Amino acid sequence: MTESPEAGAADPGPAPRPGQVVFEDADYLHAVVDLLGAIAYGELSAFERLVDDAKLAPSLRDQVEMCAMASLEFGHVTRLHERLVALGADPFDAMAPFEAAIDQFHAHTAPADWYEGLIKAYVGDGMAADFYREIAAYLDADTRDLIVASLDDSGQATFAVRHIRQAIADDPTLGGRLALWGRRLMGEALTQAQRVAAERDALTALLAGGIDRPGLDLAAIGRMFTRITERHADRMAELGLSA
Amino acid sequence: MTESPEAGAADPGPAPRPGQVVFEDADYLHAVVDLLGAIAYGELSAFERLVDDAKLAPSLRDQVEMCAMASLEFGHVTRLHERLVALGADPFDAMAPFEAAIDQFHAHTAPADWYEGLIKAYVGDGMAADFYREIAAYLDADTRDLIVASLDDSGQATFAVRHIRQAIADDPTLGGRLALWGRRLMGEALTQAQRVAAERDALTALLAGGIDRPGLDLAAIGRMFTRITERHADRMAELGLSA
Repeated sequence: MTESPEAGAADPGPAPRPGQVVFEDADYLHAVVDLLGAIAYGELSAFERLVDDAKLAPSLRDQVEMCAMASLEFGHVTRLHERLVALGADPFDAMAPFEAAIDQFHAHTAPADWYEGLIKAYVGDGMAADFYREIAAYLDADTRDLIVASLDDSGQATFAVRHIRQAIADDPTLGGRLALWGRRLMGEALTQAQRVAAERDALTALLAGGIDRPGLDLAAIGRMFTRITERHADRMAELGLSA
Repeated sequence: MTESPEAGAADPGPAPRPGQVVFEDADYLHAVVDLLGAIAYGELSAFERLVDDAKLAPSLRDQVEMCAMASLEFGHVTRLHERLVALGADPFDAMAPFEAAIDQFHAHTAPADWYEGLIKAYVGDGMAADFYREIAAYLDADTRDLIVASLDDSGQATFAVRHIRQAIADDPTLGGRLALWGRRLMGEALTQAQRVAAERDALTALLAGGIDRPGLDLAAIGRMFTRITERHADRMAELGLSA
């Protein structure tokens, strides 16, 4: 397997850490490169969207706080790219297959005002993070740790919850519109996730498992989506909105 | 002097570091807060403009490289804000007086394409950095060090020089247009700097010096602007453009 500089039984260097042996499986390596590419492009777009949406902020103070969150997301992109290079992949080739779906998601969910932007930052990022974390559970420990660290909430939760709850307290009619907006975000995310699943065989094969890796049957995939929608409902409830 | 938490002869804490005693001078403190506020807002706008202008990039690779530089600029904003808070100032109040001039500069110098954006990132930031470094030479050591670190080139120089020289090699007619663009950036920067100088007495008083601080006479200010324009010409020459 020449695809992975970290694998190879003849390597006289340090002993491989647990989980590295899985990279000898070319399909596994391909799936991990796909997954890291998808997350990296997702974080890169999130960075750009947060900086754009921050312009809707009612004050420079709020704008700067959102830009600070964006900057943290960008740091994740850098670390994901470094890992892709270590796996022998080109980060830009790895991101390319996911550009259309993620760009479409953003094109269909451009926030109309500051509050929609805040909910997107919190609920949208939260949904993506839940989905990637579910997949990460089926990966080697190193990749899993990197993914979990990349998906760390950059402060969106506290920031969004505080602002949205206050806004609804000030104007209760806002709640209805923002609840609809949350449902639209969920719908668009599922649409684009299905599109990616249909196009990327390596990723879906990863979920199905391998000789020495457990996989998901259809019932398990169903339970996974139930967990993701439940956590979406939790986040909406925390904002004071119905899911 | 209650304005500065770091000053005060009755302070039983650690001995003041060299330069701190100057904060007992309320005019000096005011001028430093002004200067840090101006630089912080300048870096914050530079961050936003770089992320915006990165969208003009011919490839995702170039776009990501420009966003990486933007992210570094944002880190400087955070450190400048921390220092302003330590000096007892509100960072947003400190930035407010400079928003109009800096926003005007950007409104008048929106790049028409990727190359104009690159030159702005390099030449514009370079000019601002030269100007602030000249002023920093008249400040206490701690403030000077912070300012010099905040103005560190975030990689714009190498990146811009490489791309612009290649573009002019491919299409020599580009050189004329980009040389004009460089002059326009310089003209706009001087216009806005004069506006700030006319409005902010504390900053101009700083340049004039104090009882225990050397200042600049008119001839010295003239020499300072000569140095700044010379360095602008050097940067243009490095890009292969006439200044």
